[in-house]
Amino acid sequence: MTIDTKILSALRAAGEGGVAGTELSQDLGISRAAVWSRVEELRSLGYEIEASPHMGYRLLSAPDLLHADDLHAALGKIKIIGRDIRVFEETTSTNDVIEKLARDNVPEGAVVFAESQTRGRGRLGRKWMSPARKGLWFSILLRPAMRPATVTQLTIAAATGLFRAIRAQTGITPEIKWPNDILIHGKKIAGILTELSAELDKVKYVILGLGIDVNITTAEFPAELRKLATSLRIETGRLQNRADLAIKILQELDRDYDRVCAGQFESVADEWEEHCTTLGQHVVIHIGDRILRGTAESLDSDGALLLRTQHGQLDRIIGGDVTIEKS
Amino acid sequence: MTIDTKILSALRAAGEGGVAGTELSQDLGISRAAVWSRVEELRSLGYEIEASPHMGYRLLSAPDLLHADDLHAALGKIKIIGRDIRVFEETTSTNDVIEKLARDNVPEGAVVFAESQTRGRGRLGRKWMSPARKGLWFSILLRPAMRPATVTQLTIAAATGLFRAIRAQTGITPEIKWPNDILIHGKKIAGILTELSAELDKVKYVILGLGIDVNITTAEFPAELRKLATSLRIETGRLQNRADLAIKILQELDRDYDRVCAGQFESVADEWEEHCTTLGQHVVIHIGDRILRGTAESLDSDGALLLRTQHGQLDRIIGGDVTIEKS
Repeated sequence: MTIDTKILSALRAAGEGGVAGTELSQDLGISRAAVWSRVEELRSLGYEIEASPHMGYRLLSAPDLLHADDLHAALGKIKIIGRDIRVFEETTSTNDVIEKLARDNVPEGAVVFAESQTRGRGRLGRKWMSPARKGLWFSILLRPAMRPATVTQLTIAAATGLFRAIRAQTGITPEIKWPNDILIHGKKIAGILTELSAELDKVKYVILGLGIDVNITTAEFPAELRKLATSLRIETGRLQNRADLAIKILQELDRDYDRVCAGQFESVADEWEEHCTTLGQHVVIHIGDRILRGTAESLDSDGALLLRTQHGQLDRIIGGDVTIEKS
Repeated sequence: MTIDTKILSALRAAGEGGVAGTELSQDLGISRAAVWSRVEELRSLGYEIEASPHMGYRLLSAPDLLHADDLHAALGKIKIIGRDIRVFEETTSTNDVIEKLARDNVPEGAVVFAESQTRGRGRLGRKWMSPARKGLWFSILLRPAMRPATVTQLTIAAATGLFRAIRAQTGITPEIKWPNDILIHGKKIAGILTELSAELDKVKYVILGLGIDVNITTAEFPAELRKLATSLRIETGRLQNRADLAIKILQELDRDYDRVCAGQFESVADEWEEHCTTLGQHVVIHIGDRILRGTAESLDSDGALLLRTQHGQLDRIIGGDVTIEKS
């Protein structure tokens, strides 16, 4: 933890009561003047910190920016996801940045946020719009002891964690669309891009790339996306604090990753199935040039979708573009 | 093609008859003095090239070194594998080198050879001994339109091509051990390391790393490997020309990759099954901490091994360490 992390952490823990300068000085092992100087620095970043002789320092509000130290301080006790947080002002794609870290043997749980991406990616090389400070664009490095065929479990777990975090922060219950989208009122609000590097029978690393449209306005969406995509701001009618949402998401993802690693994928899958609007529907699935039609029945133990085709057989589907058919 | 490639290509095509200096000069659009200068350069690399007023230039022998231009010239007509050949004197691991090329968007079919590797790798991060000029250590970049689960097909195809090339060059019929080893008289002579980078439902690229023990002597094998590994030199009793073998292997791999891409994996699998000594045997398979016992029955359409367990059920096996049980 850096000094800033420790100060923010202490301020958050103290809450309304505030914390005395002498106490911070002693806990951090720096002079009271140095504490003051760090507080000034945090204020310059937009943190509203009140200082008074009686109350000491109090955190009144945090700015709508992603600050690695503050995210780390606010995250609290996590097992893996968020042990190492890095924030970039701008990158090509956070998946690319974290892939470099993966090759440099950075341990799992590292998270890279970017305030904006110049080449944000969705599935199959599709473009992902990621305007500055309007959403959460980030990637997570995982190193699960897993076969490549089982990696779909992580996409399912990420969707489940993301679902819970969005519901908790906004009060809105979103829908999960297999395998990697979160929708509100039928429009996409978040997506998950899962990439892996593996030998035939063993994963080397998995990168989960997440994109969440937080404060994008209708006017800011390109016309062709307005029917398909939405944001938390549009759906709730108010600006959302991105840092608070980011923290909640990392906490929930950490919890679900831990469940998968502990062999409890079944319980994650049950939760996922409860909120997935794809199941039970007649769907058309495009996989490259292939088109499959049938009823989405359930998930199998690897996280694949079990599709009952028109001919009655059960197909395992790993990925693809799903459209629900109106009957 | 470079000038050297063109000269070597013309010399190989002319064979015993030789090719006149004036002809080379005209075909290449350079002066006769420049042709002479390139021939001198090739001689300095160990190519024995005879020059006479009557016969022109004749290639008497090629040195036992890997020369990208010469490999390219000798390869003849291939579809994909070998379109781009690079030879390094020493690398960490050819898989690492070609992974960098993959990320730089080099097209599929690129091949990287190293005369020696300082950190040659086998499956699951195991060390692969690769002494200078004693074997063929190389990697191939492929970009198949394939799901990750189907990539085992490429390992099967590579083993089949490798089998045919070794049989053609040495006259010895090797054995294939599922999934990635070639044996002679029960000892390992070659291995294949398959690595992939993918999204859940789409491969970005596959790297096939091949290691073939060509001219290693018994004395050069560490004592602990002598019971397990052998070389073509030991088995045939004579030095093998590595370049000739490399060319034959690339041609055969190109043919099998083409078959897989054309949807003819079944015919590759039939050939593989014919020469696989694992099938029909009682085997023990170690996959991480798991141990499976049963009879290796056949391959499925994705290239996975179908194992009939002790309890009568059929398990799909993607990878693992197989030991044949003597009954």
